[in-house]
Amino acid sequence: MEIVAKQRVFEGELVRIEHASKTNNCNMTASVFLPPLAVSHVSSHPVPVLYWLSGLTCNDQNFAQKAGAFRAAADLNVAIVMPDTSPRGYGVADDPDGSYDFGLGAGFYVNATSPTYALNYQMYDYVVSELPALIESNFPVNQRRAICGHSMGGHGALVIGLRNQEKYCSISAFSPICNPTECSWGQKAFTGYLGNNQQAWLEYDATALLKRGGSTLPIRIDQGSEDEFLSNQLHPEAFLKVAQDKDVKIDYGLHTGYDHSYYFISTFIDKHLAFHAEHLFNC
Amino acid sequence: MEIVAKQRVFEGELVRIEHASKTNNCNMTASVFLPPLAVSHVSSHPVPVLYWLSGLTCNDQNFAQKAGAFRAAADLNVAIVMPDTSPRGYGVADDPDGSYDFGLGAGFYVNATSPTYALNYQMYDYVVSELPALIESNFPVNQRRAICGHSMGGHGALVIGLRNQEKYCSISAFSPICNPTECSWGQKAFTGYLGNNQQAWLEYDATALLKRGGSTLPIRIDQGSEDEFLSNQLHPEAFLKVAQDKDVKIDYGLHTGYDHSYYFISTFIDKHLAFHAEHLFNC
Repeated sequence: MEIVAKQRVFEGELVRIEHASKTNNCNMTASVFLPPLAVSHVSSHPVPVLYWLSGLTCNDQNFAQKAGAFRAAADLNVAIVMPDTSPRGYGVADDPDGSYDFGLGAGFYVNATSPTYALNYQMYDYVVSELPALIESNFPVNQRRAICGHSMGGHGALVIGLRNQEKYCSISAFSPICNPTECSWGQKAFTGYLGNNQQAWLEYDATALLKRGGSTLPIRIDQGSEDEFLSNQLHPEAFLKVAQDKDVKIDYGLHTGYDHSYYFISTFIDKHLAFHAEHLFNC
Repeated sequence: MEIVAKQRVFEGELVRIEHASKTNNCNMTASVFLPPLAVSHVSSHPVPVLYWLSGLTCNDQNFAQKAGAFRAAADLNVAIVMPDTSPRGYGVADDPDGSYDFGLGAGFYVNATSPTYALNYQMYDYVVSELPALIESNFPVNQRRAICGHSMGGHGALVIGLRNQEKYCSISAFSPICNPTECSWGQKAFTGYLGNNQQAWLEYDATALLKRGGSTLPIRIDQGSEDEFLSNQLHPEAFLKVAQDKDVKIDYGLHTGYDHSYYFISTFIDKHLAFHAEHLFNC
């Protein structure tokens, strides 16, 4: 692991790392926010970690630059780990059409099985296993983890949290793709990464997973009413219906006037951090 | 004036406007944050305005996206107006070398007099007169104004504030170019925009202006100790020395470990907003 940049922010540190990923067979970049308590020059103390998964077209920097999350994370003594949204680099297959919603910047947090993408697009295993192991052996953090994300990353957070409930204390999402097998973003991605066997797709559909296994983890979802993708791509109503049927309580907020952007995230990120901190320090 | 985008953030609104500037002889773009109190669908009430001037390479969006300022501005009921850093568009002269520190994205908040740039590069008059008149006739704001900026924009805030003390309630800056006649960024810009008459340069040098006229306005400056431009370009010590000689109190903070980036700004922007709010509501 190499540290490629380090910047002071809110008396903590934003560290950008690069490492050779065995899971994705390429170099991966990630950003790590360490709160003051975990910064070595002050006093090193293991802190819990929130994993943040970004949406389509993002890399590890968008959330760091735009969410305004570090003030609250510093106050709460929570680290934030921000992986990239796909493998990248020389030789990594992209969408031949160069679209924004498949290939580079659009890994969809699955383990690809289709021949073109299987070598590098193992983002599910990368986020679930390789990245936490790397972080926990290189930074002063403990093994209390929470997971959160936006849009494609909200889908990733729900899927990864629901399938690995023993690994996380809490799950949250902004404007998540809740039922990707039923929207065009998800269908395109799953066809490309997983092939046509729709049974395999269900392993990466939060609504199907909740229906099958329920949840013992606390879940918070926030959604903007003016989100341009709400009616076509996100389908929170499908997820909420299943939650109701399974008697799983979702802390859901529909916010009038907000869109799909980081301005929406910045408005409610403090509430997500407080939600996760409450559970991270009590699980 | 045309509204080209509107987004909800912290129960307020971020509005992006475009207008034909008579001062700069081209279309100009600006962003305006309106706190909840000033958003018409809630209840329209005139609020004071903080003008934010960005640094080299920026446009009207960098601060909006990266500073994390709107939470505090919403709480304090302060609007923020973010102009572009230069004229732009078809026919607007750029640096023939295409450098980052002159021409487009680098107007330096002066009124250019050199033949190539005089037609469009009138950013001083634009920020002092045309933009406030436009804002005050189109948005529910009052005439209480404060001014703040970063780097080249910190230079702009100090110069414009010091030369127009009757128009503003308070001045602040992050990592400002305090003495541009004595650094290479300033010398290059002033030579290009103003020609070789160094007497004319002094009208845009905060240290020279403070020496000549002092200040009755409260001034706050924050600076990172690890700022990569501190020793070569910024020269806060020159400004502070003159302030001491003139018995002008500067609220100056030198912050260990911070660099020149928006992460530094985001860490201290709440303190700047509180500083300006205190003076805006009492002047």
